[in-house]
Amino acid sequence: MPGIGQRSAERLAFYILKISRGEVSNLSGAIEEAKAKAFCCKICNNLSEEDVCQICRNPQRDRGLLCVVEEPKDVVAIEKTHEYRGIYHVLLGAISPLEGIGPDDIKVKELIERIRASQGAIREIIIATNSNNEGEATALYLTKLLKPSGIKLTRIAYGIPVGSAIEFMDQVTLGRALAGRRQV
Amino acid sequence: MPGIGQRSAERLAFYILKISRGEVSNLSGAIEEAKAKAFCCKICNNLSEEDVCQICRNPQRDRGLLCVVEEPKDVVAIEKTHEYRGIYHVLLGAISPLEGIGPDDIKVKELIERIRASQGAIREIIIATNSNNEGEATALYLTKLLKPSGIKLTRIAYGIPVGSAIEFMDQVTLGRALAGRRQV
Repeated sequence: MPGIGQRSAERLAFYILKISRGEVSNLSGAIEEAKAKAFCCKICNNLSEEDVCQICRNPQRDRGLLCVVEEPKDVVAIEKTHEYRGIYHVLLGAISPLEGIGPDDIKVKELIERIRASQGAIREIIIATNSNNEGEATALYLTKLLKPSGIKLTRIAYGIPVGSAIEFMDQVTLGRALAGRRQV
Repeated sequence: MPGIGQRSAERLAFYILKISRGEVSNLSGAIEEAKAKAFCCKICNNLSEEDVCQICRNPQRDRGLLCVVEEPKDVVAIEKTHEYRGIYHVLLGAISPLEGIGPDDIKVKELIERIRASQGAIREIIIATNSNNEGEATALYLTKLLKPSGIKLTRIAYGIPVGSAIEFMDQVTLGRALAGRRQV
């Protein structure tokens, strides 16, 4: 399990031995239930308790603005900003030639199909994949693939994180922050 | 001394006791020399071995592009990117009401004077102060002060650092990265 090493595992095992049988079955029940109830949203592949997720069902979300992310946890991160009112498309992965993950192994086909089915309703596609190798490879692939569609394609900004000092930034990020400077 | 704790201090002290007298006088001489030779550049306040620093003396630097930073170490960081060909103005600090540092305690007056003396040669001022409270306060102050001059004012980009994952970014930075997205 991610983030659970030898020590944490021991601590959890002793905790389970210590709690009552009722509490244990509550816990195992909750785990079963989480797995049974969690689906991938039919539309965006985000985690959902129903066929279509809350974001896709929400009539107040802007259906002209589509944000493409790698994983459901990225949707959570972006939702926490309270600054995004569009919809999402979750790729459920990123292109990684080293690990043998190609465009066909992630939800790219579904993205193309979705854009086609929207019949021009999508005005802008924000590519919000990670800025590591896999995320950049995916962003590059999507850019090439979607450019001919004529839909406005954007990439989330590179730059210095809020609260950080210039002197501690790496060269590549600082170079991007300078190149991407904005008029004030 | 910054970054030197009890242990490092002990290690350095023992090192000095171990090396020869000649080496010790070399070291102390080098320290004296560094202090004696280091001036603030008359033009930009950057560290320099002469009255005017190497960047200000370099005829190949673009004198129409002025980057305002807090400290000489920020100049070093930006120079390492090899992406900036303009000149600098080092404020030698940042506005910090909590520490009682106001605009008169840093080189703001000198900046205004320098812009005035340039007689319109400066086309763009890049505000590259840190993105922490002091740096933002300084950026805001400079923006208000310089706006009436009509010179193009820019701020280095906020966003996700290169190589980082969306899920680990703080909400404010992620919000800024979304707001500052760029067309690809």
